Amino acid sequence: MKQWNNITIIGVGLIGGSLAKALKKAGLVKNVTGYGTREESLQKAQQLGVVDQYTLSLQEAVQGADVVVLAVPLGAMEAVLKEMQPFLSEETLLTDVGSAKTSVLNAVKAAFGRIPKRFVAGHPIAGKEKSGVEAACENLFVDHRVILTPTAETDKGALAELTELWQATGACVSEMTPAFHDEVFAATSHLPHLLAFGLVNLLNEHEELGNVFQYTAGGFRDFTRIASSDAVMWRDIALTNRDAIVKWLNHYQAEIQALTELVGSGDGQRLHDYFAQAKQARDEHIVKPNEIKDGSQTKP
Amino acid sequence: MKQWNNITIIGVGLIGGSLAKALKKAGLVKNVTGYGTREESLQKAQQLGVVDQYTLSLQEAVQGADVVVLAVPLGAMEAVLKEMQPFLSEETLLTDVGSAKTSVLNAVKAAFGRIPKRFVAGHPIAGKEKSGVEAACENLFVDHRVILTPTAETDKGALAELTELWQATGACVSEMTPAFHDEVFAATSHLPHLLAFGLVNLLNEHEELGNVFQYTAGGFRDFTRIASSDAVMWRDIALTNRDAIVKWLNHYQAEIQALTELVGSGDGQRLHDYFAQAKQARDEHIVKPNEIKDGSQTKP
Repeated sequence: MKQWNNITIIGVGLIGGSLAKALKKAGLVKNVTGYGTREESLQKAQQLGVVDQYTLSLQEAVQGADVVVLAVPLGAMEAVLKEMQPFLSEETLLTDVGSAKTSVLNAVKAAFGRIPKRFVAGHPIAGKEKSGVEAACENLFVDHRVILTPTAETDKGALAELTELWQATGACVSEMTPAFHDEVFAATSHLPHLLAFGLVNLLNEHEELGNVFQYTAGGFRDFTRIASSDAVMWRDIALTNRDAIVKWLNHYQAEIQALTELVGSGDGQRLHDYFAQAKQARDEHIVKPNEIKDGSQTKP
Repeated sequence: MKQWNNITIIGVGLIGGSLAKALKKAGLVKNVTGYGTREESLQKAQQLGVVDQYTLSLQEAVQGADVVVLAVPLGAMEAVLKEMQPFLSEETLLTDVGSAKTSVLNAVKAAFGRIPKRFVAGHPIAGKEKSGVEAACENLFVDHRVILTPTAETDKGALAELTELWQATGACVSEMTPAFHDEVFAATSHLPHLLAFGLVNLLNEHEELGNVFQYTAGGFRDFTRIASSDAVMWRDIALTNRDAIVKWLNHYQAEIQALTELVGSGDGQRLHDYFAQAKQARDEHIVKPNEIKDGSQTKP
């Protein structure tokens, strides 16, 4: 397996920090540099052993790096890419961890005027409702998917290197087109997050029932766990994957409108079938972490 | 604490079975009788030690019982109540564990022509996505709420006895009017369950993306856990608390319509504030199991 001398993490938060820790644990990298704009947070990352050193200079951060990982919020991608562009070597493997991919490719094009051969966009399907480097964890990606979205311009060698790098963290790597990625994750991730934010805001606003949260149980806690996610991250996802998200929110509204009419109809047989179908689909299809295997379908 | 000689559980599934086990563990009851319509399931309950004996005769089940607990699906309440009415002593403490309360009171009135003094409706806020007596667990109610919904007719002694009985299982007991109960749980429980069923059905139906469930992660699993709940139970809840559920589905649709427009607008500041408000509300208000205390607010 290829060893890397210098990896730079741009934005040492939960995902960037967890990647650094996982690669160190795997013995794949000698030296990790952290870049960010808040020195306090970078000092913390160094104290925690997540990075070997840090810098507030983007030029220093990317010059001499073998791999540069962009782990900043989606909304900061373009500005960071434009600032690093004059200093980044053509030989450096450049990747990102953003939750929407078309917008990242557009940001790369805007910064470089083209897609550099050794840029490969990526998205690890892992997270926590906690953010920040303190939450970083070397096992975050074990048995989780990482989606890479290469384009026609992507160098095959760079793609293979990045695949190997993510596999070293314990992740299962797949490939998709950027557009398919954005559609799939609008449906399976962005939509449920927005639905959970919406439910919490709805109940929080309805003052006439008092503090109804006190009557919620485990089901509600689980359902709304993702509503404790970082607001900046979700603002940027909503902004950068807007069209696909609006499309799936509209699909969902139509589904709920039909369900509302079904409840209103009082048709017991159809209600039973509706719930039984969902239960069956979930019990059959939902991936359990230990069922994810490279290259295999995850349907049990 | 009052000891009971004979408790009868009508419907020995997850909730009825867990209550029997919890009361035995607490030493509150000498003898538990199970009643049901499927002998195989009752044999299983006896083998597991959940009930001391069982009967397929409702007359046998309720004659001589000190406490009768109705733990059948909401849709079966009225028929069971009508069948037991000729045999039930005025001295027997009668209760239920249904998730909607107005409909249970209507079923009791239909069966008895009035609300018997020693009937007290109840709702333990506990569950699992698994059902059946095999899933029954003596700790299911520990640090969970149980809502009792007494009416003007309810005997104070019966209410006090039932409160003590539930407290012996480790639960925190509160009181509400039936109508307020149904409104609160339409919002905090029935609504999220239906939203989760709806999301799974939506994604299951959209064949053009393939099996998208394979790309889901922990957030989706948690969000949809409640969509693995029992279809008969949820059919009956949808039928018996229909008006409150339709009202909250409509509230939610309006919320999601507004959120869809907000995403479409691309207004980053307002999107950020929307997500931050939900995150703050959830982080502040969501009850953690160990924070539920009798008589105290659960807001941390």
